[in-house]
Amino acid sequence: MNSQSGQPLESVDLTDARIDDAFWSPRIETVRETTIDFVHERLADSGRIENFRVAAGETEGEFQGRFYNDSDVYKWLEGACLFLVTEDDDGLRERVDEVVDLIAGAQEADGYLNTYFQLVEPDKKWTNLHVLHELYCAGHLIEAAIAHREATGEATLLDVATAFADHIDRRFGPDGEDGVPGHEEIELALVKLYRATDEERYLDLARYFVDRRGAADSRLKYEAFNPDAIAGEPYDHVVDGEEYDGRYFQDHAPLREQETVEGHAVRAMYLYTGAADVALETGDRELVEVLERLWENMTERRMYVTGGIGSSHEGERFTEDYDLPTAESYAETCAALGSVLWNQRLLRLTREARYGDLQSRTLYNALLAGLSLNGDRFFYANPHEMGRDGHPLHDVDPNRFANERQGWFQTACCPTNVPRLLASLATHVYASDESSVYVNHHIGSEATLDVADGTVDVDVETSFPWDAETTVTVTPSEPVTFELALRVPEWCVDASARVAGEPVDATPGEFLRVEREWAAGDEVRFEASFPVRFLSGHPNVESTAGSVAVQRGPIVYCLEGRDSPRPLHQVRLRANGDVAVEHDPELLDGVTTLDLPAFVPDESRWDDGALYRPVSETDVEPTTVRAVPYYGWANRGPDEMRIWLDAESGEHDRPE
Amino acid sequence: MNSQSGQPLESVDLTDARIDDAFWSPRIETVRETTIDFVHERLADSGRIENFRVAAGETEGEFQGRFYNDSDVYKWLEGACLFLVTEDDDGLRERVDEVVDLIAGAQEADGYLNTYFQLVEPDKKWTNLHVLHELYCAGHLIEAAIAHREATGEATLLDVATAFADHIDRRFGPDGEDGVPGHEEIELALVKLYRATDEERYLDLARYFVDRRGAADSRLKYEAFNPDAIAGEPYDHVVDGEEYDGRYFQDHAPLREQETVEGHAVRAMYLYTGAADVALETGDRELVEVLERLWENMTERRMYVTGGIGSSHEGERFTEDYDLPTAESYAETCAALGSVLWNQRLLRLTREARYGDLQSRTLYNALLAGLSLNGDRFFYANPHEMGRDGHPLHDVDPNRFANERQGWFQTACCPTNVPRLLASLATHVYASDESSVYVNHHIGSEATLDVADGTVDVDVETSFPWDAETTVTVTPSEPVTFELALRVPEWCVDASARVAGEPVDATPGEFLRVEREWAAGDEVRFEASFPVRFLSGHPNVESTAGSVAVQRGPIVYCLEGRDSPRPLHQVRLRANGDVAVEHDPELLDGVTTLDLPAFVPDESRWDDGALYRPVSETDVEPTTVRAVPYYGWANRGPDEMRIWLDAESGEHDRPE
Repeated sequence: MNSQSGQPLESVDLTDARIDDAFWSPRIETVRETTIDFVHERLADSGRIENFRVAAGETEGEFQGRFYNDSDVYKWLEGACLFLVTEDDDGLRERVDEVVDLIAGAQEADGYLNTYFQLVEPDKKWTNLHVLHELYCAGHLIEAAIAHREATGEATLLDVATAFADHIDRRFGPDGEDGVPGHEEIELALVKLYRATDEERYLDLARYFVDRRGAADSRLKYEAFNPDAIAGEPYDHVVDGEEYDGRYFQDHAPLREQETVEGHAVRAMYLYTGAADVALETGDRELVEVLERLWENMTERRMYVTGGIGSSHEGERFTEDYDLPTAESYAETCAALGSVLWNQRLLRLTREARYGDLQSRTLYNALLAGLSLNGDRFFYANPHEMGRDGHPLHDVDPNRFANERQGWFQTACCPTNVPRLLASLATHVYASDESSVYVNHHIGSEATLDVADGTVDVDVETSFPWDAETTVTVTPSEPVTFELALRVPEWCVDASARVAGEPVDATPGEFLRVEREWAAGDEVRFEASFPVRFLSGHPNVESTAGSVAVQRGPIVYCLEGRDSPRPLHQVRLRANGDVAVEHDPELLDGVTTLDLPAFVPDESRWDDGALYRPVSETDVEPTTVRAVPYYGWANRGPDEMRIWLDAESGEHDRPE
Repeated sequence: MNSQSGQPLESVDLTDARIDDAFWSPRIETVRETTIDFVHERLADSGRIENFRVAAGETEGEFQGRFYNDSDVYKWLEGACLFLVTEDDDGLRERVDEVVDLIAGAQEADGYLNTYFQLVEPDKKWTNLHVLHELYCAGHLIEAAIAHREATGEATLLDVATAFADHIDRRFGPDGEDGVPGHEEIELALVKLYRATDEERYLDLARYFVDRRGAADSRLKYEAFNPDAIAGEPYDHVVDGEEYDGRYFQDHAPLREQETVEGHAVRAMYLYTGAADVALETGDRELVEVLERLWENMTERRMYVTGGIGSSHEGERFTEDYDLPTAESYAETCAALGSVLWNQRLLRLTREARYGDLQSRTLYNALLAGLSLNGDRFFYANPHEMGRDGHPLHDVDPNRFANERQGWFQTACCPTNVPRLLASLATHVYASDESSVYVNHHIGSEATLDVADGTVDVDVETSFPWDAETTVTVTPSEPVTFELALRVPEWCVDASARVAGEPVDATPGEFLRVEREWAAGDEVRFEASFPVRFLSGHPNVESTAGSVAVQRGPIVYCLEGRDSPRPLHQVRLRANGDVAVEHDPELLDGVTTLDLPAFVPDESRWDDGALYRPVSETDVEPTTVRAVPYYGWANRGPDEMRIWLDAESGEHDRPE
């Protein structure tokens, strides 16, 4: 499927858009009020901030933590700055400035900046790209710096970032040293820096990193086979005997030849996002087709129903087609975030609703599950099933594989990632070009967009995700003709819309498009129903066989033990049975619950103590179980949980 | 439930009974012709026989293998001798004599005999009963010695065994040193020795070991907490902080106070068998009641549908009620064997058919699965499900946790155990007292039993286990009145029987009993049907939820991947649907197969590439899968396998 227009959409700047949504605003406020402070304390307690102070020479000390710890500080900084864009906060600004000063102070004269190398291996900079994350950290520095300028109007950190980018640009590229990052991120950051500075070198370097990856004479391969030439240790998991297996970091083939999503899921998402960013700027259609092909492999073979990706904890990676275990699912929160970023770019490149649908699926489910309702507990890996005895991988790592969200992780990528996404959520809602305004998400919000030669204020009011009523009000500076496009999610039924009282076509899975002259106060009134959908997984997926998941609107549901009269293994849902839908404003900060009809064993049949007995139809009795949104699980204490529940596959009449 | 008679039944001697059965005879011949030789070679290759040669001073060398390796030699020897009881074999006799001579030569002057201690820790004999298996090995020596005398009429090995038993009797007991074995076995061996020698000291010592176990001042506990006082290392898994947890070897409480089957399953079975043997000789009713209670806990809470027991590989043990994982099931072959022994004693003590039923379930399923059809491959642990990717515990131990039977194990208990059971199978078929003849199993065979003041020849001809027709012909030396009892298995339906043309009552789950004057050639003609039974597991068993197992007669069936048109996770059985039953004389050395109706996903519904889609009744299509007996699995190469298959629980009409 190709795009409908050769010209990509522009996303809205955060300065021009604002969330005002019954569902999302309280969550964003929690992150602003709780998570940002909480994460800052952890960064300070764990020495991550102190590393910059030591590198700046302000104090004596040794490097603390892991070699990528700078990135956590940058990501927190970016999130904090994004919040400052939309709302002043003197206390937060003070902490931001303090950290910015430390970062600036730590930068070396030639622009280099990485506290691990500066403090631990100063003579071995740039020798181990495949493991040691210098370019990854640089990417997050760049993103933080752009947010900092957007928030403060000051160039302090942007100057640091460009100096480092220039250092990197001098060192790497067609005219310099060969190399690509072991962990992608700098590609998308360089495109962002290009947009922020209009300096084409950054775009060129991003394109170089995208296109150089997977070369036959891979630099990453060289490093893996030459431990004496590099800082630290090489990865052994990219070496298979004499053979190099670069799939872990998407270095197995040039991107343009790749046909399956491979390896570390976060890396893959960041690469694809960076490549899409390059395509957005260069109009590279081939790259778009490659990304569409990879997207189809991911969504048709390697993705959880929540939008979660990267099924295995070994390498935090994609594995094989249809390999999607539920209890051991990795589905890293950061990978979900990466998917949201990638799909934003694909939507802008192609104007196809399916990318907005997947953003929505991922945001409401895979991503949001990573954060506790109170904002200070996190899942790094996201189980899709929890047993009564806890996580099956608990002994591998009790921190990442627990039955409750945790306060922190040695690798703290996820707690520092979620805030920067939620702070910039508004930038995902809108996109536009000179003749179009796209409302990609049914999220209450306002934006001011440049259209034709003027501006249009757009206001979205919605009952999503619990009900499907949305009103989009447009207020152009003067009456103007443009196309207004509103995504009609594929999980809508009986979708309809009216503009100025006139019905317009609204097809689920597509954008509703209305091209007309719009005047101040004109409205698109959209409505649909959200039937409860019982989903089955592809027959090749072993973990979902015989089971169903339940989705309503964008929300994937789960069953927690406390909401079932029986242990979850005893519950067999009556797929497509009558469901009682009710909104409970108190439960889990307000959720719509689903009372699902189910069968459970008639325990009286087992009174004789038998362990095995012949089955009969009357062994079961009807009951009801209450499903809650998956994102809200594990907020009421440890419990068993299942997304996929055993089910009768049809619509039989059963004994009542 | 108590026994119907205070007087226990006697079992038949192997010299007085002979198997002649279409099902069992070929298997017993395979063990005689293949397994006995194969195991002997492994014993020789692995140094287990050589250890005796070195201990005897016939050659120089070091002890090889594990501290319990003597027991494997004794068990092989017992099996070989049991075969010699029923059929001469000069070559085998020669090898037996050679081994017997080595054993006799290795014995020390005071009767002590254990090559590990003699060669490795001669100064630390009897210091580590809880780990180092001296008493366990002694028990197997005694059993081998009794078989040797039965086979040869010679006392060579029995003299060795009694000398060692006397040594042990001098050392341990009320008047000697405190102690019980860490691994039970000697209890049942001492009772057997008492029967063979009429020496009451052996029965007294057996009773001491049974009753002393689980004392508050446990010797095993002392050893576990005093590593400096013992040979080798103590078990750390019986120590929980400051606390002693003796459940692993049933030392947590006196046997008479135990209410649940606990710990290492083989040890538990051997203890209960030994205790039952004591009760058989002493008439101790309390002990019988304790064993009945434990049996009910096992069969109602802690047993696989195959009769397999000991669900966890960690400690090879019983765990909690209803904890019966299928893919990771341990269900050690030796534990199944132990259960067969225990149930034989319980049947003799109580005359209840349920113990014969469980013997039968265990023999045809849990036990027989441990041996390949060709007799030279073995399962130590028995999975109840095998995935396409192999055994989930493969990385723990690729030898024990494989998807095919193996040639040998470092701990070789199972390959040496199965032959001695099959060689003595006839002793399980019959039991009697002066006024009764019990036919406990429908296994073709002949026996001569003492009844009243004469003898009765009994001949059993049967179509079991594939069909339920059995004729028992009795030929008393002269017409005599006695009760003939024939077990009617609980899996029979429409059971009927005639004696001299007259119908007699035949109730499944009970013994059919006919008391009359019997003359030469009188017959009991029994027949019943074996409907296919779809079994469900107790609701508290998580692994069997939503699934059914299929049994016909005593045979539990499984589905192997090659006999299904689809991967097994896609198969949903139509429980209680019409089944085609067919006997295939070629397949797996002759089995009755079951063609089971099932649903599988209609793959055409997934042509659009979707990974998840709303379910509907028409997503499935009917098919047929062919189930084969579980004991025969993994004889046609690696494959996936399931006993428990997802199932519709009722009898719905579904789209055809």
